[in-house]
Amino acid sequence: MRAMVVTEYGGPEVLKLQDRPTPEPGDKDLLVEVHSAGLNPVDYKIRLAPRWGDRTFPFVLGYDFSGVVRGVGKAVTGFQEGDEIYASPSIIRDGSNAEFVCLDYRLAAPKPRTLDHTHAAALPLAVLTAWESLHLHGHIQPGDTVLIHAGAGGVGHLAVQLAKIHGCTVITTSGSPESLEFCKHGGADHVLNYKEEDVFERVKEITGGKLCPMVFDTVGGETFNISLRCVGYYGRAVTIVPGIPTEHINSLFAKCASVHLEYMGLPGMFDVQPERQGQILRKVGELVDAGKLKPHVSHRFKLEELRDAHRQQETGRTIGKIVLNVK
Amino acid sequence: MRAMVVTEYGGPEVLKLQDRPTPEPGDKDLLVEVHSAGLNPVDYKIRLAPRWGDRTFPFVLGYDFSGVVRGVGKAVTGFQEGDEIYASPSIIRDGSNAEFVCLDYRLAAPKPRTLDHTHAAALPLAVLTAWESLHLHGHIQPGDTVLIHAGAGGVGHLAVQLAKIHGCTVITTSGSPESLEFCKHGGADHVLNYKEEDVFERVKEITGGKLCPMVFDTVGGETFNISLRCVGYYGRAVTIVPGIPTEHINSLFAKCASVHLEYMGLPGMFDVQPERQGQILRKVGELVDAGKLKPHVSHRFKLEELRDAHRQQETGRTIGKIVLNVK
Repeated sequence: MRAMVVTEYGGPEVLKLQDRPTPEPGDKDLLVEVHSAGLNPVDYKIRLAPRWGDRTFPFVLGYDFSGVVRGVGKAVTGFQEGDEIYASPSIIRDGSNAEFVCLDYRLAAPKPRTLDHTHAAALPLAVLTAWESLHLHGHIQPGDTVLIHAGAGGVGHLAVQLAKIHGCTVITTSGSPESLEFCKHGGADHVLNYKEEDVFERVKEITGGKLCPMVFDTVGGETFNISLRCVGYYGRAVTIVPGIPTEHINSLFAKCASVHLEYMGLPGMFDVQPERQGQILRKVGELVDAGKLKPHVSHRFKLEELRDAHRQQETGRTIGKIVLNVK
Repeated sequence: MRAMVVTEYGGPEVLKLQDRPTPEPGDKDLLVEVHSAGLNPVDYKIRLAPRWGDRTFPFVLGYDFSGVVRGVGKAVTGFQEGDEIYASPSIIRDGSNAEFVCLDYRLAAPKPRTLDHTHAAALPLAVLTAWESLHLHGHIQPGDTVLIHAGAGGVGHLAVQLAKIHGCTVITTSGSPESLEFCKHGGADHVLNYKEEDVFERVKEITGGKLCPMVFDTVGGETFNISLRCVGYYGRAVTIVPGIPTEHINSLFAKCASVHLEYMGLPGMFDVQPERQGQILRKVGELVDAGKLKPHVSHRFKLEELRDAHRQQETGRTIGKIVLNVK
């Protein structure tokens, strides 16, 4: 099969098109013909340096796909050849930047009926991250006023929609004129320009001093410290960015609050409750097919253009998602 | 009224018996004749140095009591003169180391019928801390194997019992021969001697490598780093000790876990959901009167012996609670 592989750790130039053996599905695996593969920041991070253990070269990146089942392991239930599915496959196995990928069937769900493969492939990793952050960790409730940083980002734009669907008032942040515009049309109730406004002061003003029961931080670094300040009494700061600064965490005692470190790759990596992610993707599919949730794809590339796709991802300025059309 | 007051910040010698005006209840206050007042580490911490703002001297410590209602503010409902009640009054008002104390009626609950004032006064602050840590933050579930540090301590011995009542398997830690013995008879399933055993290795062994969905840390310092290691996938580390070391918190990403900073004083301090604590104390009263929960009082002092009570509290080696009998 055709696959874009990582030949060594380094810049986008280490990505090369190669002919590789089609993977063999294990007992619990689906073999999937990849139509589209979504990109995420984790792709270039793994390309740059070892993460979650060292890799054997060459290996294939790509932790989102939408495609068609072409093979079914002995222990698989609920799927058969020909099914259109979408999922975020394990981050420690070969990924979806190839014509075929294998994954544990419990991670997968039927592709949303109303989406093409391109848009379906934009969803899994980002929407699972957003869902787990808002619900599993964030315990958002209807009526809550929540702060979601970077509402134009891959995870952020889905988190804004999920929070709105759940009946929350959403404050989001953005920095460029285009992304501010995108957020304003994306359903957020309050869009703050973090380059021009004091986010904490504005959140205080909007919430009448109460601050937020849940802050979702997809940015990290100094932004995380702002997140801690924006958390209200009994609130939850949820982050998805490894390496958060921790020196102000003790300030949460005075608010009886908590810090949650979300990592959606866990089920596929350690076989921990993988069926939960399949279930979330089914619920997401229902929201999509009901016209309530919509992923935004801003850039499309062909498989062999993966280097350019990585360069775009690495700008950190993509609105919504980047998708590789493999087939 | 007779009151033990703090005359300046310092050692136990700054505590002095004085005649003070009986406090006037505000609209939402109960005026309570104190029978017994429980001690907590926060007493000597406030005596030593300013915490949560500076104080005007002289002021009265004591954040636990059991007593009888002698006055009722205009806006109070559900209580009347003569009621026997118990509560943890606000940490920023004058406390219960006196013949009378005032508090917001929503913080209070009827004294458990089957306890004397001495034992009722041992409960509120510690049991509210334990309850909020295990339920509000820790989300413990029946069948969970949880680690509760210092199972012989004021908070710990109640947390062990609450976790057992909820159907958890409880691992606890202790260091002295007496406290190990106390824990073994207190309902804990596994008692580890932290001076002789590697707590992390033993937790790993007991849980078959799964570690704990909830770790309750009442010790802080280096113990908190052990707590982080003992948290399993999607787990929660709950601490009640300000100034936790934060340098290993990022390790929780690989477990998709969270850190919760519990501070039970919030409702009384900032008027945030005070009725929740009254409700918890009612549920605690039911558990006590059903014979399921029992506070342990190891030391009793008279009001004028408060200095000795502080010295005992400051040893950090008290099993269960210290109570001041005021009346």
